[in-house]
Amino acid sequence: MQDHLLSELGQQLRVDSVRAAAAAGSGHPTSSMSAADLMAVLLANHLRYDFEQPGHPGNDHLVFSKGHASPLLYSLFKAAGAISDEELLTFRKLGSRLEGHPTPRLPWVDVATGSLGQGLPVGVGLALARKRLEKLDKADSRVWVLCGDSELAEGSVWEAAEHACYEHLDNLIAIIDVNRLGQRGPTRHEWDLGAYARRFHAFGWHTIEIDGHDPTAIDRAYGEAASTIGRPTAIIARTVKGRGVASVENREGLHGKPLPDAEEAIAELGGPREMAVPVLGPPEVSVAPRSREGSLSLPRFEPGEDVATRDAFGQALAALGSARGDVVVLDGEVGDSTRAELFAKEHPERFFECFIAEQQLVAAAVGIQARGWTPYASTFAAFLTRAYDFVRMAAVSRADLNLVGSHAGVAIGEDGPSQMGLEDLAAFRAVHGSTVLYPCDANQTAHLTAAMAEESGIRYLRTTRGKTPVLYPASESFPIGGSKLVRATDEDRVTIVAAGVTVHEAIAAADRLAEEGIPARVIDLYSVKPVDARTLREAAELTGGLVTVEDHHPEGGLGDAVLEAFGDGSPAPRTIRLAVRDMPVSATPAQQLTAAGIDAEAIAAAARQLAGPAR
Amino acid sequence: MQDHLLSELGQQLRVDSVRAAAAAGSGHPTSSMSAADLMAVLLANHLRYDFEQPGHPGNDHLVFSKGHASPLLYSLFKAAGAISDEELLTFRKLGSRLEGHPTPRLPWVDVATGSLGQGLPVGVGLALARKRLEKLDKADSRVWVLCGDSELAEGSVWEAAEHACYEHLDNLIAIIDVNRLGQRGPTRHEWDLGAYARRFHAFGWHTIEIDGHDPTAIDRAYGEAASTIGRPTAIIARTVKGRGVASVENREGLHGKPLPDAEEAIAELGGPREMAVPVLGPPEVSVAPRSREGSLSLPRFEPGEDVATRDAFGQALAALGSARGDVVVLDGEVGDSTRAELFAKEHPERFFECFIAEQQLVAAAVGIQARGWTPYASTFAAFLTRAYDFVRMAAVSRADLNLVGSHAGVAIGEDGPSQMGLEDLAAFRAVHGSTVLYPCDANQTAHLTAAMAEESGIRYLRTTRGKTPVLYPASESFPIGGSKLVRATDEDRVTIVAAGVTVHEAIAAADRLAEEGIPARVIDLYSVKPVDARTLREAAELTGGLVTVEDHHPEGGLGDAVLEAFGDGSPAPRTIRLAVRDMPVSATPAQQLTAAGIDAEAIAAAARQLAGPAR
Repeated sequence: MQDHLLSELGQQLRVDSVRAAAAAGSGHPTSSMSAADLMAVLLANHLRYDFEQPGHPGNDHLVFSKGHASPLLYSLFKAAGAISDEELLTFRKLGSRLEGHPTPRLPWVDVATGSLGQGLPVGVGLALARKRLEKLDKADSRVWVLCGDSELAEGSVWEAAEHACYEHLDNLIAIIDVNRLGQRGPTRHEWDLGAYARRFHAFGWHTIEIDGHDPTAIDRAYGEAASTIGRPTAIIARTVKGRGVASVENREGLHGKPLPDAEEAIAELGGPREMAVPVLGPPEVSVAPRSREGSLSLPRFEPGEDVATRDAFGQALAALGSARGDVVVLDGEVGDSTRAELFAKEHPERFFECFIAEQQLVAAAVGIQARGWTPYASTFAAFLTRAYDFVRMAAVSRADLNLVGSHAGVAIGEDGPSQMGLEDLAAFRAVHGSTVLYPCDANQTAHLTAAMAEESGIRYLRTTRGKTPVLYPASESFPIGGSKLVRATDEDRVTIVAAGVTVHEAIAAADRLAEEGIPARVIDLYSVKPVDARTLREAAELTGGLVTVEDHHPEGGLGDAVLEAFGDGSPAPRTIRLAVRDMPVSATPAQQLTAAGIDAEAIAAAARQLAGPAR
Repeated sequence: MQDHLLSELGQQLRVDSVRAAAAAGSGHPTSSMSAADLMAVLLANHLRYDFEQPGHPGNDHLVFSKGHASPLLYSLFKAAGAISDEELLTFRKLGSRLEGHPTPRLPWVDVATGSLGQGLPVGVGLALARKRLEKLDKADSRVWVLCGDSELAEGSVWEAAEHACYEHLDNLIAIIDVNRLGQRGPTRHEWDLGAYARRFHAFGWHTIEIDGHDPTAIDRAYGEAASTIGRPTAIIARTVKGRGVASVENREGLHGKPLPDAEEAIAELGGPREMAVPVLGPPEVSVAPRSREGSLSLPRFEPGEDVATRDAFGQALAALGSARGDVVVLDGEVGDSTRAELFAKEHPERFFECFIAEQQLVAAAVGIQARGWTPYASTFAAFLTRAYDFVRMAAVSRADLNLVGSHAGVAIGEDGPSQMGLEDLAAFRAVHGSTVLYPCDANQTAHLTAAMAEESGIRYLRTTRGKTPVLYPASESFPIGGSKLVRATDEDRVTIVAAGVTVHEAIAAADRLAEEGIPARVIDLYSVKPVDARTLREAAELTGGLVTVEDHHPEGGLGDAVLEAFGDGSPAPRTIRLAVRDMPVSATPAQQLTAAGIDAEAIAAAARQLAGPAR
């Protein structure tokens, strides 16, 4: 498209952004207007995309990391003929798929954005999938990410910058809309394009500085980016927030607000236009099919053997990788500890080392799953908290994602509280639509490692550092949403609900109680979410009281999960909740369990209190 | 100290690190050995610190961002005469304050480390407090941060790099121990010092590349750093992991393990030494006293008035800042939305704009509180999840910290789920020793904003975007750990427990139920943690059933908090839990409450179910 038409298209995108926000009575038109020319040139001359076939393997990807510029994105979709003008004006209304920030409810949106600094790291994931997994050249498919300037303050952007360079992602192009103004005022660097260029350049990127309202310069920059080999490109564009409407141009205090007078603004922008852009089609590329249904030979462990669940996880993951060609593993530089390295050894082509950058670790997994792969990302449970905002947003992205946290709880021993996952169950349970699993033995872990991939949404598996005895035969099944009755008689007078390491303490406690004439039921609640409400209710009805015991802080974990089973108005049991209530210090694993009051002795004492004296 | 003595001291620190890890049977001696010369020169020639007066205002700060090198830190303390050799050998044992990773249980440790990439951002906070709040020149007090090379992959390090330069923190010196090896293998850049130097330089730092085992070079670098004006310095030192012991030097697979043969290693290092280092004393500096007990004039709101709790927070914060000279406010570039800007306008000298970098936002607050100030850090509740690992570690640091999350829940309306805090109550409840507050009206918010500063540990206040009616007179008191009976009679047949926006829905429901002949108790549970167990139990006993209703996901929030009150084995009530169970979309605030099933109608329906037919 020629320059004057590109400028016209830019104006159309501005007008439509203003109209959408005006119809909604909210939204971010000024942040859309700054990037309108950048996106006009992209849509008309460079993006290769079949809007009728969003699943076409040759499609480019366009990620709006500055998700609040959604009016611009939707105006692009309208210009491309993907949505009608009528739909554009449903922006932000109940029932519309044009939400305040983009989500994959729209078929042309890979991932949700709106928490700043996430689009580029997720774009790295998309680019990795394209290049390393699908073996596509950058000429086949590119990933374009529109970033705001404010969001470059997020460290996650620099994790992405580092990783993109490390992986030579020349199929990744960041377009930085430097409009000088953040939400509450000027950014740190305002219009100092060089400040951004120096940073990206130092991280190994090719950089281009341009006037973001000059179609010729923009067009040339995209061409240069597309022909840059071996490294990603950052196009750093000087733009004006609210560009095109004098009353809002480059003015503070107007972020996230519709224009004061939309009609006047539209007139000033030259009125509505109806340009339909013939978007370049995607190239015909072929992507090798990946089998999801090979024959799975999970590792088998002998009951009585001592095996750490993290070891079982690593072995199961390697086996799953052999059975399924779609399984991909990502590590946060602790693969020797999480045992993800066992997968790496067998399937190096589907293994990604993300180094100590947990946000990029999860973001890469989100991007990779958006391409239909099945990623497992693992690090210490404690350090997954670093990526909590990415996990939260992954749920908004409707991502199917396997996350595995090792070294859970005080049971790690001497390393101390900084390394102990003690908030992870709470954090993951609170994520919408999540699955939370906490196995206690090696066979259970192996089964759950494979089974989690069949769930939808965010699935979290918690593993343990130390060895624990194998309780179950390898043939046992462990449905998600189920539990195991480890000890049960019709005479049980109290129920102990445990998971992971505390199952073994619960068994020891039950044995002790049995000797005292107090039969105690033990439930292994390996599926913390969804929870096996029926088994818990039956146990509560029979025994009256429940002891819950977990290697986790008292809030949001196993104890809370158990009571969820009674949150529909049904009669609730008496409950004693054992959990890690003090700040742990360094000590041996056994000392830790005792100090936290979650060992066999503490469990037995609580059970006695609920059961009353032996009969 | 002369060079040959410095080398000897370096060897002593290595020997002691090896001995400590050998005694413990675990720990990170090789990571300590790489940095031993760097720390020997620092301790002997540059650090100014009175170990007998850790509170001396002229003391330097030394932060081990690579906290796993704790054996080295403790060996330094021994060399300085702060701990005995006997205590050194208690490393990682139960009862010892020499934990696996450093914590402020030691009086010379400002903050806990062990989650990598946190020491530098927290060091920025310390340096900010020294420079901007205490008005100390870099000649008065410096902040030295020992970083590993692996941890430079964390984005938080680059948030810190950006912020340190922006604030011209020439009192901050980062010492990068580039030992080439991470936990599971080589780092991305191995010994390419230039890669790190280019990055820090691009972020505006002065950089110095040295051989980290050459005392002369190290000494000169520290001198150069100390005399660099207007910007922070990064000393990038090439070192060898396991330096000094041939069998472990520069070898993979030895991270986090005691040396295979400690006795042989000690012999190779020249055996134990007993050098006592006469550490330079701190300069006599004076720091202006800060009043904590001025007269507080909180804003007062008229019952019936419509006021957003975020507005009340901002006004209360400004008033608190007038009454207390120790109150400091930090913003994540959303001060206009959180209303922290009201404080900024009145107390600009105690206001810190951290831009969109939530990890640095919280880390700066952690560093600032370590200097005895009382920080309030605020952003959207949703975006505090970005800093969850920093909050977790702040608890390990025994930090006293006020965090405020605005725009909680679906009640924000059109912006959509990316902007909604729906996991924050769960996340903050699960933090050890935390306080979690969720006010429903402006006077309550004002009181709690001031009261939270009196609690110890991590305190979280959740505010609401939209306006809500003022329920309570300004004279009312709201003790933390308390609740309010908003509706109560002796005839109540059901209890509704709500907080924040849902209190208003609960009142509307109770009014409706009253008309139907079902008297319903309404509890405003503004203190979500600690929870008012007595009031909840009394209500449960009287009414039999509880409806809990929250603008949060069902897990880990208000509903779970309520049941905590019955987690000691006491009889539990029947409960129906209303919460946000589906992924929200864009809609008006009222539509959102209805869609989520947490509006008055949904509450009334649940209450009817528990209460049974009207009498």
